[in-house]
Amino acid sequence: MDNILIDPNIKSENDYKRLVEIFGVKELNDNIINLLYDIVGDLHVLIRRRFFYAHRDFDILLNEYNNGKKFFLYTGRAPSKSKMHIGHLIPFIFTKWLQDKFDVNLYIQIPDEEKYWEKKADNYSEIKEYAIEDAKTIASVGFNPDKTFIFINSEYIDHLYKPAIYIAREINLNTAKNVFGFDDESTIGLPFYIALQIVPTFFENGVPLIPCGVDQDPYFRLQRDIAPKFGYNKASTILSKFVWGLQGPYTKMSASDPKSAIFIDDDYDTIKEKINKYAFSGGKPTLEEHRKYGGNPDIDVSYFWLSVLFEEDDKKLFEIREKYIQGELTTGELKSYTIEKIWSFIKEIQDRRKNININKYMYDGKLAKEMWDWEFEL
Amino acid sequence: MDNILIDPNIKSENDYKRLVEIFGVKELNDNIINLLYDIVGDLHVLIRRRFFYAHRDFDILLNEYNNGKKFFLYTGRAPSKSKMHIGHLIPFIFTKWLQDKFDVNLYIQIPDEEKYWEKKADNYSEIKEYAIEDAKTIASVGFNPDKTFIFINSEYIDHLYKPAIYIAREINLNTAKNVFGFDDESTIGLPFYIALQIVPTFFENGVPLIPCGVDQDPYFRLQRDIAPKFGYNKASTILSKFVWGLQGPYTKMSASDPKSAIFIDDDYDTIKEKINKYAFSGGKPTLEEHRKYGGNPDIDVSYFWLSVLFEEDDKKLFEIREKYIQGELTTGELKSYTIEKIWSFIKEIQDRRKNININKYMYDGKLAKEMWDWEFEL
Repeated sequence: MDNILIDPNIKSENDYKRLVEIFGVKELNDNIINLLYDIVGDLHVLIRRRFFYAHRDFDILLNEYNNGKKFFLYTGRAPSKSKMHIGHLIPFIFTKWLQDKFDVNLYIQIPDEEKYWEKKADNYSEIKEYAIEDAKTIASVGFNPDKTFIFINSEYIDHLYKPAIYIAREINLNTAKNVFGFDDESTIGLPFYIALQIVPTFFENGVPLIPCGVDQDPYFRLQRDIAPKFGYNKASTILSKFVWGLQGPYTKMSASDPKSAIFIDDDYDTIKEKINKYAFSGGKPTLEEHRKYGGNPDIDVSYFWLSVLFEEDDKKLFEIREKYIQGELTTGELKSYTIEKIWSFIKEIQDRRKNININKYMYDGKLAKEMWDWEFEL
Repeated sequence: MDNILIDPNIKSENDYKRLVEIFGVKELNDNIINLLYDIVGDLHVLIRRRFFYAHRDFDILLNEYNNGKKFFLYTGRAPSKSKMHIGHLIPFIFTKWLQDKFDVNLYIQIPDEEKYWEKKADNYSEIKEYAIEDAKTIASVGFNPDKTFIFINSEYIDHLYKPAIYIAREINLNTAKNVFGFDDESTIGLPFYIALQIVPTFFENGVPLIPCGVDQDPYFRLQRDIAPKFGYNKASTILSKFVWGLQGPYTKMSASDPKSAIFIDDDYDTIKEKINKYAFSGGKPTLEEHRKYGGNPDIDVSYFWLSVLFEEDDKKLFEIREKYIQGELTTGELKSYTIEKIWSFIKEIQDRRKNININKYMYDGKLAKEMWDWEFEL
């Protein structure tokens, strides 16, 4: 079903650059990153390491923010028939940082129809269960419960439908096919779903800022054609790369292949086993050779994950890199270090998840309450 | 926009027969009509005159009814940016008769998104206004307020959406295009709308019986492929022909052309003027010729309307026909008679409409209340 949404088919860093050109977005350059730093006095590791690497109008948004213009955050997660893995959390982790720094409202859409309409699950109720589980996992990232609204489409449709009526009228099947790669075998729900994903950009009058995987940009490219017609702001996006699966560079971390992914609910032993057993290594086959020739961090999955997110200390990461290249640090040592880092991250989420008050995010927190009273008006 | 829904393009009675073949439905024959008569002891004029002329499984439904199987009624009206004319009321008049005779529940869908997605209106709020006005007009036909639920899609979407998620998965764009004539210029809402029109056939476990214009059959042909997968009954339909417009045989009564249509809110003088001025006549140009050669009732719009609905007395209709053919009855006399008949019909609707308690049908009648608590479960 890779034709259902554009499959970015990333095999190298060059492919990410290629997407920038195809989508007509811009790379996040030093100027923008400095602008962000000037405002918040800090830079998240996902930005510093350029895992979020491209954007639409994020520079304009920051400049306008300096002049008093409001923005709000919007992102989402389409539940499927499997659990969330660490790759799925990336946009949420960065989004939480943005919310903390800018103290803005955040809307999180859980479209429980999308994957069912993509026929990625045979059973809708199965997806619905994951929708609620995913909502809890996402909330456990630690968003501000009074400024965050998590909603499941089928539950919140009463509020989504009216704006979707307007938006759906502005998009024809031709556009849906060209932009998303749908074809005549696609179910009739999928083209309509485009409208539903755009709706939350109309939740406030400020600029919607959407941190998401680069593959989601087409939705918001369309949004930008439509929003001004209804007096709403064009969406700004910050776009991330994709995490590698355990199998090696540019493999997919796939929820349907447990050997490729580390799930948010994996326990310590499982994580340890997966990384030790499956994480592709840039080390040499024998300790002797490794000491002599050194390892290659650039193809090493453990190193990749440290560099993306789990080793926030730039100095420390550089040290690891150098020692690995020199053969001083072994694959076993690198993996052990990575296991501890990932576990400490996951444990924090798991601990928060045990006591999460999901109702605050979905129904009775300050923003959630407001949104259950929200009505779209033009 | 004639490609949006199949345009039946009816130019003769043969074209109605052609549709029966294309759609794979059956003509209503004497056996079925006798079966109906045996059960209810009566026949509505729209059946007697074969204005409802075709069906799917209506015979099976009646036989099963005799064996205790339940059915319910479902029909609808897509509001546009103009008022309802007498042609629009035809399915409702017959539906009321069925409800009276069988004492069954009736669901009436008012899809306020369809015509907007067809781009037949530029302004959604305009359509929404007509939706409410149309609901009142329809209710004024006199349905049982405790067994009738009239709902506007955008208001009732919270209940429609979940079954629509299931139904939309079973239909692909290819089918939507083949069955309804959509093309890639169609908006993304229209294919999805198919699912919404099918949803009410899942409101009860009995057989849905749908009296409607023959052009609506494709929706329910699809329904019949889908319903059994979810344990629901295949829809049965009773299909009507279309009323002629004032301009003559097989012209359209079009709400957007006031010279072609008699509206439900037209006053006596307007009806009189329209029929006298515009109703195509089968009479001869001069009184002299008319007396000599007689008129042709078969191309006469006034006579057509009497024969379809407004002259229920078969003997009287035959008398009119004969006198017109003989030239005994003049065009002016025929028109006068038709004007009085139509006015007495419309006045009754208008009088009921003045005091209609639309809330009973939409929100707080017995069935309406039940339906606002209804949740789709599989």
